[in-house]
Amino acid sequence: RDRVGEIVESDRFQWLIIGVIVINAVSLGCETSPALVREYGDVLTALDHSALAVFACELLARLYAFRLRFFRDPWNCFDFLVVAVALLPAAGPLSVLRSLRILRALRLVAMVPSMRGVVTALVRSIPGLLSLSGLLVLLLYVGAVIANNLFRDTGDARFGDLGSTVLTLFQITTGDGWSDVMRDLMEHQPLAWIFFLCYLLIGTFTMLNLFIAVVCSAMQS
Amino acid sequence: RDRVGEIVESDRFQWLIIGVIVINAVSLGCETSPALVREYGDVLTALDHSALAVFACELLARLYAFRLRFFRDPWNCFDFLVVAVALLPAAGPLSVLRSLRILRALRLVAMVPSMRGVVTALVRSIPGLLSLSGLLVLLLYVGAVIANNLFRDTGDARFGDLGSTVLTLFQITTGDGWSDVMRDLMEHQPLAWIFFLCYLLIGTFTMLNLFIAVVCSAMQS
Amino acid sequence: RDRVGEIVESDRFQWLIIGVIVINAVSLGCETSPALVREYGDVLTALDHSALAVFACELLARLYAFRLRFFRDPWNCFDFLVVAVALLPAAGPLSVLRSLRILRALRLVAMVPSMRGVVTALVRSIPGLLSLSGLLVLLLYVGAVIANNLFRDTGDARFGDLGSTVLTLFQITTGDGWSDVMRDLMEHQPLAWIFFLCYLLIGTFTMLNLFIAVVCSAMQS
Amino acid sequence: RDRVGEIVESDRFQWLIIGVIVINAVSLGCETSPALVREYGDVLTALDHSALAVFACELLARLYAFRLRFFRDPWNCFDFLVVAVALLPAAGPLSVLRSLRILRALRLVAMVPSMRGVVTALVRSIPGLLSLSGLLVLLLYVGAVIANNLFRDTGDARFGDLGSTVLTLFQITTGDGWSDVMRDLMEHQPLAWIFFLCYLLIGTFTMLNLFIAVVCSAMQS
Ligand code: NA
Ligand code: NA
Repeated sequence: RDRVGEIVESDRFQWLIIGVIVINAVSLGCETSPALVREYGDVLTALDHSALAVFACELLARLYAFRLRFFRDPWNCFDFLVVAVALLPAAGPLSVLRSLRILRALRLVAMVPSMRGVVTALVRSIPGLLSLSGLLVLLLYVGAVIANNLFRDTGDARFGDLGSTVLTLFQITTGDGWSDVMRDLMEHQPLAWIFFLCYLLIGTFTMLNLFIAVVCSAMQS
Repeated sequence: RDRVGEIVESDRFQWLIIGVIVINAVSLGCETSPALVREYGDVLTALDHSALAVFACELLARLYAFRLRFFRDPWNCFDFLVVAVALLPAAGPLSVLRSLRILRALRLVAMVPSMRGVVTALVRSIPGLLSLSGLLVLLLYVGAVIANNLFRDTGDARFGDLGSTVLTLFQITTGDGWSDVMRDLMEHQPLAWIFFLCYLLIGTFTMLNLFIAVVCSAMQS
Repeated sequence: RDRVGEIVESDRFQWLIIGVIVINAVSLGCETSPALVREYGDVLTALDHSALAVFACELLARLYAFRLRFFRDPWNCFDFLVVAVALLPAAGPLSVLRSLRILRALRLVAMVPSMRGVVTALVRSIPGLLSLSGLLVLLLYVGAVIANNLFRDTGDARFGDLGSTVLTLFQITTGDGWSDVMRDLMEHQPLAWIFFLCYLLIGTFTMLNLFIAVVCSAMQS
Repeated sequence: RDRVGEIVESDRFQWLIIGVIVINAVSLGCETSPALVREYGDVLTALDHSALAVFACELLARLYAFRLRFFRDPWNCFDFLVVAVALLPAAGPLSVLRSLRILRALRLVAMVPSMRGVVTALVRSIPGLLSLSGLLVLLLYVGAVIANNLFRDTGDARFGDLGSTVLTLFQITTGDGWSDVMRDLMEHQPLAWIFFLCYLLIGTFTMLNLFIAVVCSAMQS
C-alpha cells in the first residue's frame, strides 16, 4: 500500500498524468471539428477512452493508497468528480454533461504547483466576499421586482418576466449596453432614466466596494 | 415597557421577522407573474397584507419600547419609511410607489450583522466623496451646455435638449457606446471628435480619482 | 490699494461672486432651450451681460490690488481666460467659442476650498503620468500606421485615413465595441484578429499600469 | 574602437538619432495617405531609405564598438530586429511585414530615459503574471470547448468553430457586447444564460485577481 502511494506521488508518474491530460484536452478540442471527426473519429474516441482509463486507474490507485484520507483533499474530490462525469449516459437529457468532459483539462491546475497556489488564493478570498455578494444579489432581486413592475407593460422582452429582468439588471451592472436598454424604454416611459440612474449608481458603488474588498484581502496575504 | 423591548430584541423574534421578510419578498416576486396572480392572486395578497401587519405591529412595539430614541437609529428610520410606503394610495399618480413595497426586502440588510457592517462602511465612505462627486456633476453640467450648443442643430435626439445631453454625457463617462454617439455626430460635424476626446480624458481621469479616493478611504479603515 | 484687496478677499464678496456664478450658469443652461429663449431671451441676455460685468469688475479690482502678482496664481489665470472668452466676436468662425462661456461655471471650483484641493491634487498627479501617457500616444501612432497599412484596402471608413485609424484604435483601447470593429474587418481579412489581440493586450496592459501609477502617486500623498 | 564607442554614446549623437527616428516616423505616417504619396512619393521613399541607412550605420558602429556585448542588452536586440525588418522582401507573402517598419518609431522609447524606465518596469512585472495568465488561457480553452459543444448547432457564426469560439469568449471576458451574444443564443437555447453567467463570474474574478497581482507587484517596487 505504501509502495503504491510512493509510485503515485513520484515525479515521473505526475509527468505521465500531465501528458495524458494535455493529449486528452487536445483530442477533445479536435472533436469539436466535424471534419476531423469524420476523418479521425475512431482515433479521437480511442484517445479519449484511453485517457479516461488512465485517469480511472490513477484514482483507484490513489484511493487504494490513501483510503478515505483521499477525500480530505479538495483537489482529489475535484479529480474524482470530473472523471466521474464520463460515466454518465451519453444520450438522453444528460447528454449535455458530455461536453463537461473537457473539465478534466482543469486537472492541470492541480498538477502545476504555481497554478495550484494561485487558485487556492482565489478560493480562499471567496468567504470574505460573501456579505457583499449577498448584498448584490439582494439589490438585483429588489431592483428586478421594481423594474418588472415599472416596465412590464412596455412590451420590452428584456423586462418580460422576473427572470429576464434579473438578467437585464445584471447586464446593466456590468455596464454592457445599458444606454440602449434605457433609450428603448424611454420611448414608452420617458421617466425610465430615473430608475437607471439610481440603479447604476447604487450597483456600481457596491461593485466597486466588492472590488476593493478583494484588493484589501489580497494585500493582507 | 422593558419587557416589550426584551422581546423585540430577542433572537427568536428577530428570526421570525427575517422569515416574514423572506416570505414577503418571495410573494412580491410571485406577484410579477400574471399567471401566478391569476391562479393564486388572493393568497399572494393575503400574504402581503399579513406581512405588512406583522411589520406594523413590530414597529409599534419598538416605538412603544424605545419611544423617540427609536428614530435616532437610521436603520429604524429606514424600516419606518419602507413600511409606510404601503399606506400610500394604490391608485392614481402615486401607484408607481406600490412597486416600492419590495424595498421591505432590504430590511434583511439591517437584520444580518455582516451585511449591516458592509452597508454601514459603504455609507460612511460617502462624505469623503462629495467634493469629487460635486466636481463630476459640475463637469457634467458644463459639458452638457457646451455639447448642446455644439450639436443641437445636428438633429440628433441624444443632444435634443439639456436633459438628454446630460444623460448622453453620463453614458459617455461610463464608456458605454461612446464611439457610436461620436461617429453619428461626425457625419454632420467632422470635428466632433475633439469634444469627445477632451470630455473622455477629463471625465475618466476624474472618475479614476474618485475611485482611488474610495480605495484610500477604505484602506484607512 | 490694500483696502480693495481686503474687500475682494472678504467672505461676503466671495459669496456674492459664487451667487453670480451660479445664476450665470443657470441662465446659460436656460439659453440652450429655444422655447425659453423665445419667451425670456432678453432677460437671459441681460443676466449674462450683468454677470460678465460683475466678473470683469472683480478681475479689474483684483488686478488693481495685486498687480502682476495676480498672474502668479494659476487659478487667477484661469479666471482671466474664461472671462476673456466672452470678448471674442460672437459671429464668424469663432462663434463656436461662444459656447465656451459656460466654462465660467468652473470658477466655482476655485471658490469652494474642498473642490479646489481636489483639483489641485488631480493636476499635481499629471507630471508623474507623462512618461506613460507618452508611451500610450506612441503606441497609438505606431498601431495606427500598422492598422492603416493592413486594413486601408478593406474599404472600412474607420480605417480610411490615419486620423480615423488613430480614433478607432483609441476606441479599441477604451474597450468600446472593439469586437464589432474586428468582426467587420474579418470578413475581408480573416487574420485581422491577430492585430486586435496584440493591440488589446499591449494597450490594456499599458493603460493598467498608467492606472496603477496614478494610484501609487495618490497614495504617497 | 573606444573612440567609436564614445561617439555613439555621446549626447549629440543620441539627439541626432532621435531626430532621425521622429522624421522617419512622420514620413511613414505620411505614406499612409495616397494623396501625399502621389504628390511627394519620391521624397518620402528617399527619407525612409536615408533613415534606414543612418540606422544601419549606427548599428554597425555599435556592433564594431561593443562586439558581442552588443547583444546582451535587450534594447539593442530590439533595435537590431526592427531595422532588420526593412531588409525583408517588399513583395510576395511577406509584404505585410513592410507595415512593421513603423516599429522603428518605438526606438524612441529606448532613447528617452524616463520611458525606458517605464517599459523596463512593465516587462519586469510579466513573469509574476504567468501563472494567472496561464490559468486564463486554460479557462478560455476549456470554456471554448464547452461553448462550442453547446452552441455549435445554433448556426451562430461566433460559435462556428473552436477558433471563433475562443475569440468570442475572449470578447465576453473583456465585457464588450456579451449581452448581445447571449440574447442571440437564447433564441435557440433558452438556457444559454447559465453558461454565460458562470463564465462571466469565473472569468471576471480571475481577471480581477490578475489585475490585483499587477498592482501588488508594482507597489513592492
Ligand atoms: Na463596455
Ligand atoms: Na459596450
